[in-house]
Amino acid sequence: MFDAKLLANEGVRNLQPYQAGKPIEELERELGITGIVKLASNENPLGLSSEVRTALQETLSGLSRYPDANGFYLKSKLAKKFALKADQITLGNGSNDVLELLARTFVSAEHEVIFSQHAFVVYPLVTQAIGAKGVAVPAHEYGHDLTAMLAAITANTRMIFIANPNNPTGTFLTTEQLQRFIEQVPEHVLVVLDEAYSEYVAENERAPSFEWVASYPNLIVTRTFSKAYGLAGLRAGYAVSQPEIADLMNRARQPFNMNSLSLRAAEVALDDDDYLQQSVAVNAAGMEQLIAFCDEARLAYIPSHGNFLTIEVGENAGQLYQQLLHEGVIVRPVAGYELPHHLRVSIGLPEENAAFIQAMKKLLGA
Amino acid sequence: MFDAKLLANEGVRNLQPYQAGKPIEELERELGITGIVKLASNENPLGLSSEVRTALQETLSGLSRYPDANGFYLKSKLAKKFALKADQITLGNGSNDVLELLARTFVSAEHEVIFSQHAFVVYPLVTQAIGAKGVAVPAHEYGHDLTAMLAAITANTRMIFIANPNNPTGTFLTTEQLQRFIEQVPEHVLVVLDEAYSEYVAENERAPSFEWVASYPNLIVTRTFSKAYGLAGLRAGYAVSQPEIADLMNRARQPFNMNSLSLRAAEVALDDDDYLQQSVAVNAAGMEQLIAFCDEARLAYIPSHGNFLTIEVGENAGQLYQQLLHEGVIVRPVAGYELPHHLRVSIGLPEENAAFIQAMKKLLGA
Repeated sequence: MFDAKLLANEGVRNLQPYQAGKPIEELERELGITGIVKLASNENPLGLSSEVRTALQETLSGLSRYPDANGFYLKSKLAKKFALKADQITLGNGSNDVLELLARTFVSAEHEVIFSQHAFVVYPLVTQAIGAKGVAVPAHEYGHDLTAMLAAITANTRMIFIANPNNPTGTFLTTEQLQRFIEQVPEHVLVVLDEAYSEYVAENERAPSFEWVASYPNLIVTRTFSKAYGLAGLRAGYAVSQPEIADLMNRARQPFNMNSLSLRAAEVALDDDDYLQQSVAVNAAGMEQLIAFCDEARLAYIPSHGNFLTIEVGENAGQLYQQLLHEGVIVRPVAGYELPHHLRVSIGLPEENAAFIQAMKKLLGA
Repeated sequence: MFDAKLLANEGVRNLQPYQAGKPIEELERELGITGIVKLASNENPLGLSSEVRTALQETLSGLSRYPDANGFYLKSKLAKKFALKADQITLGNGSNDVLELLARTFVSAEHEVIFSQHAFVVYPLVTQAIGAKGVAVPAHEYGHDLTAMLAAITANTRMIFIANPNNPTGTFLTTEQLQRFIEQVPEHVLVVLDEAYSEYVAENERAPSFEWVASYPNLIVTRTFSKAYGLAGLRAGYAVSQPEIADLMNRARQPFNMNSLSLRAAEVALDDDDYLQQSVAVNAAGMEQLIAFCDEARLAYIPSHGNFLTIEVGENAGQLYQQLLHEGVIVRPVAGYELPHHLRVSIGLPEENAAFIQAMKKLLGA
């Protein structure tokens, strides 16, 4: 009797697939309602920048051709903007792709991979898919406990994932904390610093992580265009590392992992400073709006440096999530992150945040 | 001293990255010429269908949202068109992604993977990346030697890749040959039937491969939107299998591997029968044009069922490739496929084929 499970790799067989935020269309189909507010996936509420939209329209004609497998223009632009060399950059179909690529390039079944409790679920997923051992270090006040993470390093450790700011908690490590940590990680261990939400952090608080790559050869920094740049639907991300690491990742990379439109959109988005500033401003205002509501409603929350706020709503978080769906508001349950009493709310436009607040008031009042 | 190579998985370390066809823009940059004809990557010369273009323009507004991780609409459409169930389908960022996903789901370092000499280079690449043993079975008249491939199966064999039609040779296996083969493959071995060029084959010659999946649980069929559907730049492909296999692949799949625009484009392209028929007609006419030239120039070629013709040009194939570049014509050297005396020419528009023919006449006459 044929049993596909018996033929699958053990890591894959036991994998629970990533649970994406509920799409608006799916809720429309399920409940037959419209006017839905989605605050579930830390997306940019501004929509596509008009400059990117124009560029995409102009790019449509070439789509029957394969994308540029080397991403020449996007890498050149990134290199110029961030004072890097193009051969330090690895492009990905979202930073998810780059994170997976790092694991597949450097980690195998005999290795251990360290990440924090409450950290991005893709770290344990890519680790398990390879059949390596994932080591989840208990968090300290919802954030990375760097001392404990250092102590967890063994001879078999090959990779450590650090998310800064962290998703889904929004906690943040200072430049000093991070640098002291990286200095103490032995060189046989690669440190992957995931800065997906970096653009929301004030410039003077951001670590000079791209510069660090020159001094710490075992450091890899990942970034995405899915958040502040507003390109989640297009899948664009990248890693910055020493050229030697990028070269190895590029061998394992699918040659056309980024498609022609995402390459072009990322190029244009990188220059669109107005959009980026507006994203950050809208986020800061929305964060104040949500915090004011939490204070008023006496709900605890985890202070966040990202484009989301993770709010402690109590034991009935799962039920509240369902009730919010029926009010046309999609947020994100985070029980899978060992936060069963919290809900993660992405910062939307002022009126979207208001819709969430209104629904919460109705449901909590009841 | 830090050495990234020592930390990389052995399979990846020794990988030679996939060589994509030379992009038009790259040749423009290198030689400073314009009006280049690219017949190097088996792309669709018709460009994007106008229906797809319209649909993409309408989709631009939603791009700051994540794609639908489940590809609900595309899977529903594929299921309806091909009388499948949606849970038999695994979507990929091009069929390259699906092929890689199959290997990563089912193959590990202790396994052997069988493919044919002169077959698509992605099969050995994904095998090597995992650290498994690739077994390249010598071809028979440039095509798959199914008897020898059966004989190559051992207790450690986990997967066999069959490309039909084969790229880069264009050879074709009949329904009878294929079925007899699949029937003899033991169930511990998965047969991956890569039908990227299937739409160019006359309908009455195509194997009922999707139907076979019900009878042969170890069979997986892959298709792409990059060829006859004209969406190479958008990356869209899929696998059809038993639900059990699809479920396992979907665990290892990156949740947003297909972006919002490629999902939408593939949905629309699937309905655009006019475009598909035109693709096939343009290809048939171009094939005649190239064959007539070969016959006239007394050049041997491998009879092809794809959208390309692989022509025997002799010992100086590499030089001729370079000379063609200087004439503004990009074709594909296939020395890496153990075909050092051949060049693979994609079928273009009549005028593109004519440009190739004219350049060849000039260079061969000299």
